[in-house]
Amino acid sequence: MFTSVVVVVLIPAGYSNGFRGQVASAGLLDLLDEGVPGVGTYEDFNTIDWVREKSKDRDRHREINRQKKQSDLALLLSLIDAFSGWLLMLLIGLLSGALAGGIDIAAHWLTDLKEGFCMKGFWFTHEHCCWKSNETTFQRRNKCPQWKSWAELMVGPYCFSFSYGASAYVVNYLMYVSWALIFSYLAVILVRAFAPYACGSGIPEIKTILSGFIIRGYLGKWTLLIKTITLVLAVSSGLSLGKEGPLVHVACCCGNILCHLFTKYRKNEAKRREVLSAASAVGVSVAFGAPIGGVLFSLEEVSYYFPLKTLWRSFFAALVAAFTLRSINPFGNSRLVLFYVEFHTPWHFLELFPFVLLGIFGGLWGALFIRANIAWCRRRKTTRLGHYPVLEVVVVALATAVLAFPNEYTRMSSSELISELFNDCSLLDSSKLCDYISPGKGGERAANFSMTTNGLADRAAGPGVYTALWQLVLALVFKMFITVVTFGMKVPSGLFIPSMAVGAIAGRLLGIGMEQLAYYHHEWPMFKGWCSLGAKCITPGLYAMLGAAACLGGVTRMTVSLVVIMFELTGGLEYIVPLMAATMTSKWVADALGREGIYEAHIRLNGYPFLEPKEEFEQKTLAMDVMRPRRNDPPLSVLTQDGMTVEEVEGMISDTSYSGFPVVVSHQSQRLVGFVLRRDLVISIDNARCCQDGIVGASRVLFTEHTPSHPYQGGPPPLSLRPILDLSPLAITDHTPMEITVDIFRKLGLRQCLVTQNGCLLGIITKKDILKHMAQMANRDPDSILFN
Amino acid sequence: MFTSVVVVVLIPAGYSNGFRGQVASAGLLDLLDEGVPGVGTYEDFNTIDWVREKSKDRDRHREINRQKKQSDLALLLSLIDAFSGWLLMLLIGLLSGALAGGIDIAAHWLTDLKEGFCMKGFWFTHEHCCWKSNETTFQRRNKCPQWKSWAELMVGPYCFSFSYGASAYVVNYLMYVSWALIFSYLAVILVRAFAPYACGSGIPEIKTILSGFIIRGYLGKWTLLIKTITLVLAVSSGLSLGKEGPLVHVACCCGNILCHLFTKYRKNEAKRREVLSAASAVGVSVAFGAPIGGVLFSLEEVSYYFPLKTLWRSFFAALVAAFTLRSINPFGNSRLVLFYVEFHTPWHFLELFPFVLLGIFGGLWGALFIRANIAWCRRRKTTRLGHYPVLEVVVVALATAVLAFPNEYTRMSSSELISELFNDCSLLDSSKLCDYISPGKGGERAANFSMTTNGLADRAAGPGVYTALWQLVLALVFKMFITVVTFGMKVPSGLFIPSMAVGAIAGRLLGIGMEQLAYYHHEWPMFKGWCSLGAKCITPGLYAMLGAAACLGGVTRMTVSLVVIMFELTGGLEYIVPLMAATMTSKWVADALGREGIYEAHIRLNGYPFLEPKEEFEQKTLAMDVMRPRRNDPPLSVLTQDGMTVEEVEGMISDTSYSGFPVVVSHQSQRLVGFVLRRDLVISIDNARCCQDGIVGASRVLFTEHTPSHPYQGGPPPLSLRPILDLSPLAITDHTPMEITVDIFRKLGLRQCLVTQNGCLLGIITKKDILKHMAQMANRDPDSILFN
Repeated sequence: MFTSVVVVVLIPAGYSNGFRGQVASAGLLDLLDEGVPGVGTYEDFNTIDWVREKSKDRDRHREINRQKKQSDLALLLSLIDAFSGWLLMLLIGLLSGALAGGIDIAAHWLTDLKEGFCMKGFWFTHEHCCWKSNETTFQRRNKCPQWKSWAELMVGPYCFSFSYGASAYVVNYLMYVSWALIFSYLAVILVRAFAPYACGSGIPEIKTILSGFIIRGYLGKWTLLIKTITLVLAVSSGLSLGKEGPLVHVACCCGNILCHLFTKYRKNEAKRREVLSAASAVGVSVAFGAPIGGVLFSLEEVSYYFPLKTLWRSFFAALVAAFTLRSINPFGNSRLVLFYVEFHTPWHFLELFPFVLLGIFGGLWGALFIRANIAWCRRRKTTRLGHYPVLEVVVVALATAVLAFPNEYTRMSSSELISELFNDCSLLDSSKLCDYISPGKGGERAANFSMTTNGLADRAAGPGVYTALWQLVLALVFKMFITVVTFGMKVPSGLFIPSMAVGAIAGRLLGIGMEQLAYYHHEWPMFKGWCSLGAKCITPGLYAMLGAAACLGGVTRMTVSLVVIMFELTGGLEYIVPLMAATMTSKWVADALGREGIYEAHIRLNGYPFLEPKEEFEQKTLAMDVMRPRRNDPPLSVLTQDGMTVEEVEGMISDTSYSGFPVVVSHQSQRLVGFVLRRDLVISIDNARCCQDGIVGASRVLFTEHTPSHPYQGGPPPLSLRPILDLSPLAITDHTPMEITVDIFRKLGLRQCLVTQNGCLLGIITKKDILKHMAQMANRDPDSILFN
Repeated sequence: MFTSVVVVVLIPAGYSNGFRGQVASAGLLDLLDEGVPGVGTYEDFNTIDWVREKSKDRDRHREINRQKKQSDLALLLSLIDAFSGWLLMLLIGLLSGALAGGIDIAAHWLTDLKEGFCMKGFWFTHEHCCWKSNETTFQRRNKCPQWKSWAELMVGPYCFSFSYGASAYVVNYLMYVSWALIFSYLAVILVRAFAPYACGSGIPEIKTILSGFIIRGYLGKWTLLIKTITLVLAVSSGLSLGKEGPLVHVACCCGNILCHLFTKYRKNEAKRREVLSAASAVGVSVAFGAPIGGVLFSLEEVSYYFPLKTLWRSFFAALVAAFTLRSINPFGNSRLVLFYVEFHTPWHFLELFPFVLLGIFGGLWGALFIRANIAWCRRRKTTRLGHYPVLEVVVVALATAVLAFPNEYTRMSSSELISELFNDCSLLDSSKLCDYISPGKGGERAANFSMTTNGLADRAAGPGVYTALWQLVLALVFKMFITVVTFGMKVPSGLFIPSMAVGAIAGRLLGIGMEQLAYYHHEWPMFKGWCSLGAKCITPGLYAMLGAAACLGGVTRMTVSLVVIMFELTGGLEYIVPLMAATMTSKWVADALGREGIYEAHIRLNGYPFLEPKEEFEQKTLAMDVMRPRRNDPPLSVLTQDGMTVEEVEGMISDTSYSGFPVVVSHQSQRLVGFVLRRDLVISIDNARCCQDGIVGASRVLFTEHTPSHPYQGGPPPLSLRPILDLSPLAITDHTPMEITVDIFRKLGLRQCLVTQNGCLLGIITKKDILKHMAQMANRDPDSILFN
């Protein structure tokens, strides 16, 4: 008699069930964790099982807690383990802050290179070149002798005096366009050659990854390197794109790469996603200098699973990053952001009306932008347009450069433009937008002009302002159209800055309009009582800021995080009410025209398997309508707990492509015992066949707890696979409404769920089935969903 | 033959299962929602079923969506329904802001009444009394002629010139103590007589309620009224307590009461809890003038289920409340808070060392405070001390008043004290804490004294500062002890302000110490390079603020929300790093000495059934270890789907006290069909017995979908209870680890969960079982948990 049962010594890493705890000693566990490659990992384009990953981590944690009572070394290791999360956050903050600083400096330098060259050294930007000279900052930047425009360099200083007209302009124009073409070509070539994942903003993909999807290489070192370089090139090329979204991707790459330093995070997909949630907060923190806004952005917009511990750690990482960036000081002003603003004028209740108008504009533009952009991207995907990405980028860059150069407000970088539009005019301001008729020239109208406590009083607009207005209108139209074709090209491209630029232009236009109205018609009833002559009533910069917030809100549908980011930019609780009015209106208007924000729209366009946590499932279907097998399908492939041989199991594995099999008591009763993953099954059987004596094709596979007391006389020894059996698969009844099923999947992060009827196994629902069902219910193509 | 089956026309309000959708027409549903009282509601001290409540709401929402396509009126109603949430938030913000303003004003007036009386009118506070006079504000407040201290009134103005010594002091002392006794006596009497729930801070109970527990009347109108009045009295009595925690309770009462205006929120416990989450954000917003901090407080500290929609609405409500409070302007300074501070001095890296010291102090004090307070409260619960709550309050108030009066820093209200400690000294400051030796008197040491760009340079402390130091040390010791016995008495009492006061005193002491050290020993290596003579290096007010944050963090274990509240108070990103250093240290130190914050400790002390979402369940037990029936218990009471009569069912109901019964196919197979709630069963059978023909004790109870095709010849008609059967009860296997079970309960908000083994029903786990099991695992008394 041959009574021993060969127990497979393979325990999937941290696979938590009751049995495991009883058989696996800790040392063995550690050994096996290392020893069996591939167990507990996922294949590309697969979804992770959050329950399993979290169980793994809890097991690890329990093991550490157990060991730390035994030796001092283990105690020390447990302390290191406990602090490794904080250390990781520190490193992510430092690295992301440093990278963001580097990107800022390099992009500044390259952007300036399009216009000219510093004679003191080619590595100086325009600002640094002239800063070091003895000129004062109040002088126009064009007056700095060390900085030569390309025309000055090429046409030559000798003919400068008489030919600084058309020819110099043409030379500068040509150089500007050439550099734009070179930068954009380099960017798209680098992306295509080395890291195709480096294109776009990355936020849709990061949202998908954080929800539990695996996209290998998306957050890898090549992506990081190429994205950093090409981001600088793309921004400098003058294309209508921003670096803020891609900075989130860069920060997440940093987070993912640094995770490899710590076993805890390297081996656990759920823990790693906590780190990535924090990293996305870091990204926004360095992009806007808004650590709290970054954390809320991560919470509201990108994260899927955001425990409180992550909240706290994100905050820490975001702060470290912000301070690293500040100490690098890329803008040379000790500020975290280029467009820091400080307003002092209070706003009046009646101004809420134009603020709401800005919100409506933002919402309309946001919704239309999303539709137009998605339509364009779909055309790119489906027509021949998509076959020539390099050509597309170069053509768009050429068009952008050719159209942008003649207009001062499109020639400058978008962030400089926003900064200028947000700016409240002071007396010394020399920009065209601040060319108001000052009291001396203004005649009797401005006789009683004076400095108010809140700054300069409202004044009549001068000719400079009127010129600026026309240029801004042209810039607005240009930016509104060019951004639609730019976002989604094969270069790193963020949406925050272009959207904000559109809104800021619209806001400033409205603000100047209101200001002039108030100045010339201060006797109108609507201005009575709060806006007398010689008072400061309207701040056009505030309108620009609100317009920017409204447009950004319309495109991304961010709410709280957007208000907080803007609050951190301005630093005053005063403007929260206008900000809320503008962003709320914008969100409502945009939502009325289309439920999805730009990131959700791109997720759907690309077919990523993302289970939207915000949307309620409204249909009345039941689990039995969604589960497989469907009514006329062949029955579900199941294993029985003691009735199958190794050969039969292998046959089932090769016949099907399911990623797991339910185990039932017997084919007759169909009562559910557990669930076993295909991957584990394959590895276990291969392992047993090669390393365990006596396992042949005819060996019976046992999933039962107890070895049968009277085993098979003469037959081969059975193979017990109980250790790899998940004894706690979640099962729902066939009558469970899909709304509850979807909720369970979302909240627990399930990969699959079994469906039973009166205790008997009836079918299985996977995340893919749910996504397909949701697509079907929304009259979309269910096969568009990307899934392995 | 009698083939008709009497279908009970009772459909529990919104009870979502597949069948319901098929039988219930919408009109009927609405009618029944109104018609059957008690269905879908819960009894006192019971826990709600989140899944069921959310299903109810989704059904309601679907119904509205369906109807709105049919008529314009329904469309309008659906719009009103959609905006009712926002309207509710607006109302909560307005009401809470107004109440908070009223409480502030009333408490100010009563506090001042303890010291004196305004001759112009008794309704003026000291500040308003003197503000209206022609005196300038720079003069000492004691110089105002309209304001008479009690001594001046009683001893009389005629003898004022020669006896304003001991006798006046004694009169003032006596009046102060008497008022304190009167206020505290009134407060405790009112609480005991009208609203026993009005005592304490209310935050532990609100946390429990938000997690899904029902405590009737805890957020009712009587509680609101009495808490508002007694809060004013308790604060004015000079007891060592604050109004910030109770304001959260007051705001939640407002939220709960206003919910009654909207059917959507009145009828749905889950929706109402979303409103309460927002209301608690409102509470903190009005307490500290920190709307963002309030939202994060709600998210981090009190809320259980916080969907993104609630985030956005909380923010709106918090802002409305903050602006309502500001327009009431209770402090007369257009600020939202009494202790608004603005620092201008940058901090140096080396100062992190004393900041961390403050963190350690805060953590130590927090942990010790919690232990001492819990020990004292347990003694109150278990010994005869608890039988005399009125006496206790009066005695503590007497002791507080007697000890507090002689010391200037304990005599003033805690918030005034904090405000003074946070304050950075200016040249015109006349307080003792700012009595530095000014350059004119300082001799050669201060010869090179000058105003620095950041304010006054560090100076040598004068005699006033030294006196203040001693008084502050005494105040520190006094507050540390008296707060322990005060918190938990039967009056409304918050912890925020006393904790902050302790920390602020300690911080200011350390700050002054550091300042003097830097002044006298600026040549020490640690001050080299950043703190030369005549420079402004140390801001004692900043130390006070950090100390306050550290102590508050140690007591409540708040982290991000605390930093954000403090950030909103100071309005500068500059100080976030010191704040984080202090609060993180404080939390770590306190956590090392005891895992629980004060609120969790009080929840446990009172035995509230609260499933802590932050704590991981660390044990390795399985569902079968926790489920009932236990090994030697009688088997589970189950119903069969078609084998029982009405009498048998009624017998089972009266024999047991379970709140629900599983329904199985038959007693032999034990295969699970569904779950039925006791309450629904009782109501349905009563309803059928009285209103349906032919239902007698011998009628069979059917839970099956189809009426049997060959019913019982001659027997009474069967009673079909299928409509009240929950066909989608969540079931887990007996081998499911408890960590996963706890996670499922937490995330889905379950009330109970069935346990199966190989498809057969084995037992049931309720939230109570889980809480008892967790208590047992932590070596606590499992029977301490309060549950109906």
